[in-house]
Amino acid sequence: MELIVSKSNDNVKFIRSLNEKKYRTKYNAFYLEGVKVTNEILDKNEAIDILFIAYSKSLLISTNGGQALLNRINSLKNIKVLEFEENVFKYMTDTVNTQGILAVARIPKYCLEKEKNNKNMVLLDRVQDLGNIGTIIRSCNAFDVDTILCTSGTADVYSPKAVRATMGGILNVKIIYLENIEEINLLKKIGYKIVTTSLNTKNSIDSIDYNNKYIFVMGNEANGVSKEIIDISDFVVKIPMSEKIESLNVGVATSIILYEQYKKTSRK
Amino acid sequence: MELIVSKSNDNVKFIRSLNEKKYRTKYNAFYLEGVKVTNEILDKNEAIDILFIAYSKSLLISTNGGQALLNRINSLKNIKVLEFEENVFKYMTDTVNTQGILAVARIPKYCLEKEKNNKNMVLLDRVQDLGNIGTIIRSCNAFDVDTILCTSGTADVYSPKAVRATMGGILNVKIIYLENIEEINLLKKIGYKIVTTSLNTKNSIDSIDYNNKYIFVMGNEANGVSKEIIDISDFVVKIPMSEKIESLNVGVATSIILYEQYKKTSRK
Repeated sequence: MELIVSKSNDNVKFIRSLNEKKYRTKYNAFYLEGVKVTNEILDKNEAIDILFIAYSKSLLISTNGGQALLNRINSLKNIKVLEFEENVFKYMTDTVNTQGILAVARIPKYCLEKEKNNKNMVLLDRVQDLGNIGTIIRSCNAFDVDTILCTSGTADVYSPKAVRATMGGILNVKIIYLENIEEINLLKKIGYKIVTTSLNTKNSIDSIDYNNKYIFVMGNEANGVSKEIIDISDFVVKIPMSEKIESLNVGVATSIILYEQYKKTSRK
Repeated sequence: MELIVSKSNDNVKFIRSLNEKKYRTKYNAFYLEGVKVTNEILDKNEAIDILFIAYSKSLLISTNGGQALLNRINSLKNIKVLEFEENVFKYMTDTVNTQGILAVARIPKYCLEKEKNNKNMVLLDRVQDLGNIGTIIRSCNAFDVDTILCTSGTADVYSPKAVRATMGGILNVKIIYLENIEEINLLKKIGYKIVTTSLNTKNSIDSIDYNNKYIFVMGNEANGVSKEIIDISDFVVKIPMSEKIESLNVGVATSIILYEQYKKTSRK
């Protein structure tokens, strides 16, 4: 296998470009970093379209589990594997302490029509912080929610920072960016109830009976859920908390709501 | 009032040094940034020792609420106020989108002996991520926990990034760094029960009856709670979640536990 040593190599330019949303959209691709996540994506090889694996030998073998993964990727038959010099690898990625391995994959496309399954969902309305988005996806994994809808104003779930914060959770969820509010009405028509969180209500999340399927809408860090979505909501609820406080971090608030729905629906 | 225009001014060097833990410890001082938080610290003037306020007029007045705050600080009698040129102000702080105002304050010192009050507490054991620590403090505010204990391996709560993530919540809690594990035994002797979270247990957090006062111990992001604290724990519990998942973000896990104790104790 050829060792890539130049920062102007086309593969280097390609991976580096995926740090920007513009190029992730153009190439319909993103990358996931780290030993654990690369093993996971290889396990899911059937379900996700891996374009290639990139690694730096010196970085990888000094990481816990790195040698075993190196052996694994060297025995891969149907997936392209590229080796990079350590400094070139570091130059490509967005991570401070890189483990020396990443997988480039196609961004999966899911169709809302097909995802009208039997589970609760989350809708992120203009959520901006990439760490918050990643934390929310990690919590969706923990509390058995596998479809995350996003309004177009929500930051890009496939950015390296958000992907990293999911701790591999991105591989277990379906992400669907909505084109317009009409699509929410479509979900209402087939029986989903829209639950919006707001600080301006006295209804606790405890008032939800979980006899339906729900879409939990979480809003922008500074401005909350947009009026047009509040207007079509079936329930507006808040998390019980001290009256002295204005709000919770949106990642925390979403996780508490998902935790409650998990506890109450897994007992049914 | 004199306008500070040089980056080598002593006040500039002093504020900039507070971005590092070494100097926060040396000077026993930290800073809080932003319009909302500065208003809050001025409201709490009696309870906290403000060293001075620093601002940049051009940055401040282009921020929502900035003009009102400028009027307020210009009428202050007993607090020193320093004005900086915009570029100098930006140079001092750690924030990308600064609002052009910060307050430098003494790090408050609390004595464990005096804080044996009647409320549940949190103990952070070697928690490292500053964003997580800030989120936890914000959630402590929401769920009525006002004392946060930290083992010496926990990252510095007074770093600008952690302070920022508290959203002003740092002003409403008492932070106590423990010197040794013996101090936890001291709290046990006066009736506190130690609750450790772990993934290796089947006991749900629902098994806690809230008939005592509790210290909820949250562990390091990668390694969890240290063995010596697990060994002296009264309860080891986990958050109910999907078995497919290894763990939650520590900020999320702490918030869920605090939410549960708030719901159950506020009803008593």
